[in-house]
Amino acid sequence: MAETATLLEQAPDLAAIRAARERIRTHVRRTPLLTSPALDATCGARLVFKCESLQEVGAFKARGATNAVLSLGEADAARGVVTHSSGNHGAAVAWAATRRGIPSWVVMPSTSPVIKQEAVRGFGGTVRLCAPTLDARERTCAAVLAETGATLIHPYNDWRVIAGQGTAALELLEDAPDLDAVIAPVGGGGLLSGTAIAAKGLERSIKVYGAEPAGADDAFQSLRAGRIVPQTDPRTIADGLRSSLGDKTFAIIRSRVDAIGTASEEAIVHAMRLLWEKLRLVIEPSGAVPLACLLERKLPVERLRVGMILSGGNLDLDRLPWQS
Amino acid sequence: MAETATLLEQAPDLAAIRAARERIRTHVRRTPLLTSPALDATCGARLVFKCESLQEVGAFKARGATNAVLSLGEADAARGVVTHSSGNHGAAVAWAATRRGIPSWVVMPSTSPVIKQEAVRGFGGTVRLCAPTLDARERTCAAVLAETGATLIHPYNDWRVIAGQGTAALELLEDAPDLDAVIAPVGGGGLLSGTAIAAKGLERSIKVYGAEPAGADDAFQSLRAGRIVPQTDPRTIADGLRSSLGDKTFAIIRSRVDAIGTASEEAIVHAMRLLWEKLRLVIEPSGAVPLACLLERKLPVERLRVGMILSGGNLDLDRLPWQS
Repeated sequence: MAETATLLEQAPDLAAIRAARERIRTHVRRTPLLTSPALDATCGARLVFKCESLQEVGAFKARGATNAVLSLGEADAARGVVTHSSGNHGAAVAWAATRRGIPSWVVMPSTSPVIKQEAVRGFGGTVRLCAPTLDARERTCAAVLAETGATLIHPYNDWRVIAGQGTAALELLEDAPDLDAVIAPVGGGGLLSGTAIAAKGLERSIKVYGAEPAGADDAFQSLRAGRIVPQTDPRTIADGLRSSLGDKTFAIIRSRVDAIGTASEEAIVHAMRLLWEKLRLVIEPSGAVPLACLLERKLPVERLRVGMILSGGNLDLDRLPWQS
Repeated sequence: MAETATLLEQAPDLAAIRAARERIRTHVRRTPLLTSPALDATCGARLVFKCESLQEVGAFKARGATNAVLSLGEADAARGVVTHSSGNHGAAVAWAATRRGIPSWVVMPSTSPVIKQEAVRGFGGTVRLCAPTLDARERTCAAVLAETGATLIHPYNDWRVIAGQGTAALELLEDAPDLDAVIAPVGGGGLLSGTAIAAKGLERSIKVYGAEPAGADDAFQSLRAGRIVPQTDPRTIADGLRSSLGDKTFAIIRSRVDAIGTASEEAIVHAMRLLWEKLRLVIEPSGAVPLACLLERKLPVERLRVGMILSGGNLDLDRLPWQS
């Protein structure tokens, strides 16, 4: 792991996020903003929701994946891209690669739901299953890289991915320039890092908060300890937020994020249902964690104007978390 | 009932719909459009979805209600408005009246779900329950009108309401000007009438189609018979589409709508789930009926560019129709 100071020198700045936005603009949707007087009353703040669930792949992950895929030179691109992800990033990389006309391989644990494997295949990617351990994942990734000469696109600990994810906050603040604070969910930290760079780059005084499940609070623990505390035993319905921070995302979050809120599982489910009912959006549990933090008054945003990134809307509709 | 020719002379034209749009513009959202390559492939057409479920009240009904409420002179407005509706129109009238600062009464059958009564009250309206018969509804409406001097805003057989509903198609065609056809669901016919006036007014050659449940196909039957065939025993999950046409909506639909498609209950539920999965929108059964007609190939839109109005997203989330 590199030193924090060195990492921060290498990190993308606002100009890099603007360049990413130009790069991805014809591929990735400029998602709409929504507001809800009912949710404002519930939370005691004025909320502006950035609806990343309305991306074609159903998540902000389209941004980082597209920026990474389009950043490759012709020769590298021709050999394709590899990633490991059991969730939205895998589907997004497959989608972005197919749009560029290059091959993609997604390493997924053999335990990942068939519906998620099908999503990757549906977007034109090749699924490579491995045993559900970190070791097996790394070995399988290494094997695919050696075999194909493809480029790895890490789900979050990658400057191109971080810059791409930051384009959501860039658009949010262009469309709602008077926000006092922005909240993004934090798993591996790619979205929160990009959000912090964009928001603080545009407006130095804006507050940037992360939101994570209390049952997978490694970002909160890491900020408190001043070092990366890995997530060993995540216990949360928010399956997109079970990862640990990487050295790049930790360096950015530590230097630019004001606080991390943590939400109970009950609040996450309640927030999710409120978003479905009041905004009529299908939001996955991970996307509801910022609102859950406000329901539990875990972040100091009372009476403020708050942007909230609704990160994604992919989940199994057969059974909903509020149904017993 | 007036003669069709007389009614068509009185009906709003494109200019009236444009005037309605100016009237409601600061109150009603200009809802976004969405597309889905996956749904295009499923339907064999290029679809553009106008997301009226994203209105604050969760349905296009905000448009007609607001236009009617804002069309009243000061003296009439001060006495308030009355309507009868067990669904989205009642909530929309209460919402629009409260925004203007005037009272509203919504006559609802005593059998209507508590959640729908609460929605009206939540938006500031007064609920007046009546027995669940047409006769009781009319007597209760008449009593409230006599008592208050308020103005009736009929859910669909009202020129101001029809003009307001037409603003959705106006925006749709401004934002997607190259459509070959537009499809709207049809219950009482307010949305379909406004859609037809706007669309044919903007582009004479565009096709305008209605979509209704096969289990409540009074518009289809009425067009075929050349007279209003009332809906006596509707059997459909699409609770917003159980009404009969009125004389005004029948006159417009007969003169300007190219065909009505009818969808099975199975197709409605399937279409609804597809919209949730692929667009990540919470859409109520009525809003899924246009897509259901395409799934069953009931309308001649193959390979065409088709606008579809997703009318609303209010429903009970405790149990979804695809859950047995």
